[in-house]
Amino acid sequence: MNSVRQSAPQLQGLVPYDPKYLPARAYLSANENPRDVETEIRQKIISAIRKVPLNRYPDPLANDLRDMIAEANGLDRDQVLLGNGGDELLFNIALAWGGPGRKFLNLPPTFSVYAANARLTGTEVIDVPRLVDYSIDEETVLERVGQGDIDYVIVASPNNPTGKLANEEFLAKLLDATDALVLVDEAYFEFSRTTMRPYLAMHKNLLILRTFSKAFSLAGVRMGYILGNAEVIREFLKVRQPYSVDAVSQAIAREVFSERQKFEHGIMAIISERDRLLEELGKVPGITVYPSDSNYILFKLEGADKVWEALYARGILVRDFSHAPMLENCLRVSVGTEKENDEFLAALREIVANK
Amino acid sequence: MNSVRQSAPQLQGLVPYDPKYLPARAYLSANENPRDVETEIRQKIISAIRKVPLNRYPDPLANDLRDMIAEANGLDRDQVLLGNGGDELLFNIALAWGGPGRKFLNLPPTFSVYAANARLTGTEVIDVPRLVDYSIDEETVLERVGQGDIDYVIVASPNNPTGKLANEEFLAKLLDATDALVLVDEAYFEFSRTTMRPYLAMHKNLLILRTFSKAFSLAGVRMGYILGNAEVIREFLKVRQPYSVDAVSQAIAREVFSERQKFEHGIMAIISERDRLLEELGKVPGITVYPSDSNYILFKLEGADKVWEALYARGILVRDFSHAPMLENCLRVSVGTEKENDEFLAALREIVANK
Repeated sequence: MNSVRQSAPQLQGLVPYDPKYLPARAYLSANENPRDVETEIRQKIISAIRKVPLNRYPDPLANDLRDMIAEANGLDRDQVLLGNGGDELLFNIALAWGGPGRKFLNLPPTFSVYAANARLTGTEVIDVPRLVDYSIDEETVLERVGQGDIDYVIVASPNNPTGKLANEEFLAKLLDATDALVLVDEAYFEFSRTTMRPYLAMHKNLLILRTFSKAFSLAGVRMGYILGNAEVIREFLKVRQPYSVDAVSQAIAREVFSERQKFEHGIMAIISERDRLLEELGKVPGITVYPSDSNYILFKLEGADKVWEALYARGILVRDFSHAPMLENCLRVSVGTEKENDEFLAALREIVANK
Repeated sequence: MNSVRQSAPQLQGLVPYDPKYLPARAYLSANENPRDVETEIRQKIISAIRKVPLNRYPDPLANDLRDMIAEANGLDRDQVLLGNGGDELLFNIALAWGGPGRKFLNLPPTFSVYAANARLTGTEVIDVPRLVDYSIDEETVLERVGQGDIDYVIVASPNNPTGKLANEEFLAKLLDATDALVLVDEAYFEFSRTTMRPYLAMHKNLLILRTFSKAFSLAGVRMGYILGNAEVIREFLKVRQPYSVDAVSQAIAREVFSERQKFEHGIMAIISERDRLLEELGKVPGITVYPSDSNYILFKLEGADKVWEALYARGILVRDFSHAPMLENCLRVSVGTEKENDEFLAALREIVANK
């Protein structure tokens, strides 16, 4: 026929995720590492790629990489699972622990993909909004999971886009208060230097998400992983695409992971630039700056959408959340190189002065 | 807690997809191209990868590659969508056109992933089994879609693992008989030289799936694509992972696609070896050989599981379907190099003679 029936009802009115990644001079919108992989490591990557048989299917589970990550974290291979970016693993939790008749506890404002995945899989989203300073409403969360009907919870720590870590004491209480699967999204943990990993030993319901996209400069490669208990990982195996992590990406990630010490200097530079940016942003009149444990900073000012446009007109791309729920008039700037941060600050000061 | 609630009920009893990809001397189990990308193209690939900024997110839609594929197929960019292997796009159809309360028409025996994806998304699977020679029960299919309740259909053409194309006349009737979305899986179309692409112009409900994994020697890279009508592609955008196709894979696929003429010789060699294998297999006593338009051959013989073991003991890995429904006592051999095919034939003759 020259017609086709409608897609599933849950798609009606849905808008595709738009990263708003536009051409710019300074890319400060996607929380990427501003430095690419250094030349020496890139050379090792190229050598490794030369040896990959492109015509053969990849190792479905990327076991070499799993072993490296397991060893670095004091875990066994079956407690680690790689994914095509953290994104795939975030979708897998919705497939495996969500679905019709099941409930996901969300703490908005947070990474919007969590709720979108729940909706796509027919999972009910239960929101416990954050407080006015974007800290978690801990008491309400603990009370809500205490009702016993929540199937999984995701806590981004540090939270994206607001920037702060969740309190460790609260996370420990949360893990004890429920048998729901609790995913702590540590995508930015290399900048916060804080992890829930030690809790894995005694909490079967804890799952930790990490990524190579931020600290390890591999946003272009798509490589994420979860750390969890073997019986949870086994359920993820049932829903994942068997060959989701390609052979070339596996080779690249192995080289980067084995050289991860060399990224320390760049990570320290980002942390130090973040602290400088926080201080400098705090001096700009009319701006509310939210503290950050990550590689980005959320800030609020009147007419944020116009400020976004004025920054972009100067070649500086930041992320506009000004019309997102609970983030009215907020922009998020990723920590760039010193030069990029200077340019951003100078442009922002000028724009604010001329408002 | 040191316990975690069960995963979703649809996962209970589910077994992860197992490609049974074991170490071997001759890999004839996964329908890969036995030849890797040739040196000259690999050199171009390496040069292209050197230029990829690894620290930046990929173009979410791989628009350069989309344009190349669109142009080669006489289509527009918005009629093409890339995926992380055909696998991702097969999952997307279940997400977008399936789901609770919706129905998928399946023609078993066929690629098992179709039904698995339906089950994971809560889609009801309606089976119209193939006839004894594995041809499609055309009359029953047309009658069944005529009831008007089917939401999507997948027809592998050539069918995997049985080998034959669907009749074009039947596919045309099917497209006219229903407004269900009809995905024709042409993963092996470079070996069959037959495509439904011309029907796209007049059939909004037609979607065609292709892959770089087989003819183009990129199983390790994971790159598949669909050709369809723009309004169907738009629905896929709502359910796909935004960054599912990584930047390095995009670069590799661009090089390979622009050099695709150079793969012709290898494709012709596979077709010619397939025909030789069909003829030689037909001479082995006690074997039923199914005709093939693809790069693999299904054959049936008594005690197939023991024959599989004996082949594997000789270093030859074929795919064992002997305990799969409707495929009792069937094995599938991928067309390898001339040498691999000779080794396979010699081993099989010997095993059959000594039974």
